[in-house]
Amino acid sequence: MDVDIDKIPKHLLRFEYPIFEFNKAIIDATHQYVVAYKPNMAFYEANGLKGWKSLEKTIKYLNKNYPEVFTIADAKRGDIGNTSSMYAKAFLKDLDFDSITVAPYMGKDSVEPFLNFEDKFTILLALTSNEGAFDFQTLSTQDSPLYKKVLETSKTWNYAHRLMYVVGATKAEYFKEIRSIVPNNFLLVPGVGAQGGSLQEVCKYGLNKDIGLLINSSRGIIYASSESDFSEKAAVEAKKLQLEMKQILENHF
Amino acid sequence: MDVDIDKIPKHLLRFEYPIFEFNKAIIDATHQYVVAYKPNMAFYEANGLKGWKSLEKTIKYLNKNYPEVFTIADAKRGDIGNTSSMYAKAFLKDLDFDSITVAPYMGKDSVEPFLNFEDKFTILLALTSNEGAFDFQTLSTQDSPLYKKVLETSKTWNYAHRLMYVVGATKAEYFKEIRSIVPNNFLLVPGVGAQGGSLQEVCKYGLNKDIGLLINSSRGIIYASSESDFSEKAAVEAKKLQLEMKQILENHF
Repeated sequence: MDVDIDKIPKHLLRFEYPIFEFNKAIIDATHQYVVAYKPNMAFYEANGLKGWKSLEKTIKYLNKNYPEVFTIADAKRGDIGNTSSMYAKAFLKDLDFDSITVAPYMGKDSVEPFLNFEDKFTILLALTSNEGAFDFQTLSTQDSPLYKKVLETSKTWNYAHRLMYVVGATKAEYFKEIRSIVPNNFLLVPGVGAQGGSLQEVCKYGLNKDIGLLINSSRGIIYASSESDFSEKAAVEAKKLQLEMKQILENHF
Repeated sequence: MDVDIDKIPKHLLRFEYPIFEFNKAIIDATHQYVVAYKPNMAFYEANGLKGWKSLEKTIKYLNKNYPEVFTIADAKRGDIGNTSSMYAKAFLKDLDFDSITVAPYMGKDSVEPFLNFEDKFTILLALTSNEGAFDFQTLSTQDSPLYKKVLETSKTWNYAHRLMYVVGATKAEYFKEIRSIVPNNFLLVPGVGAQGGSLQEVCKYGLNKDIGLLINSSRGIIYASSESDFSEKAAVEAKKLQLEMKQILENHF
């Protein structure tokens, strides 16, 4: 849910919280096809107080009406311990998201405050979908590239069973090796669709016995139409992806 | 300004925005001794809407009353391009901070949207002050440790003259080499005081012809007293650090 106020249908602007109204309609129309929603914090912070309020209303709406759907605060936070604790409180306790994305650069003590939350998940950036992933993430360290070090090292942290990892769909050829390091953790996979990643390829190497994949599609669904039929068109796109996934799963299991 | 609502003097709780009142008093009492203020976003987000409002009020107060003081949004953001653009808008345009801290893990296209802002600075995490810095930042890549790669690679990005770097005071022995890679950029240096870093050591290797150092002291100043004299005590601590810095500069130049 990367909801840009400039891209949503104009008729929603008459509401007090247009972004929330947009989200609500998208959620109601697509919930039967999705396993998770992932509001992207930047898009809410870019709207200041009203953005933050829209975020609060969205997560409350989800938790109240669709408590079975997994929720992800796409925040990519990560800071020294006492600061990470504050972010963890904000997103996992106060807003009550099921999970949060976290950047690994600052290491163990920057991630553990998130992992301390029982029944919550921390989704660590491993190999991201963007071009800049090749700047540092794939650099060779002594024995393996940095992103593998992130996987290997984070496996040793307390409560590592509460870890998931971001692995971009545009890096499908890496999934096999990634699965050999973290066979059981869920992977959050952005980059299918707009960014060019292949769902088939990702599933071929990424699926595990629990499925183990959260496939993200954002702009391809929420901006399927910019007219008053935006939520029906979003449902069509969500259903399309869900059916594609279903077929892959039927062939796989 | 890592302002924890549980740690500020109790008499401030009767105000509508206690964190803002705290900040205002601290700023008025300390501005003659400081070159920059650095609100830490986590502490505002942890208070939801009221926290965000306190942040808005704080930066507006600074920009209106002390426009000559440099301001840093300590946010440690970093995401794919369109998302980083939203964070950049939120902090550098709407809130009008002079700079923002950014995590390098996602590489060039995750940082450039911040660098595109004229007359603003992007403060990239290089070698942080916490223990977890040794998990990934100091790993050897082919020819140099990761944090040096971050310095070397980021120097080649567009508008690299708008870059500053976070280098922890607890890593003083690294400053000499860091200065050989980035002789001209400013370094934001946390970790003096509470975390055990030495100002003398940092200055010995970190000073350049423009001084080139932003020394951060947070808890040592803002929590100098938890009574009604908190702002006077904060001023005493700020002045102490400023005099120490002044003496070092007089010996140096």
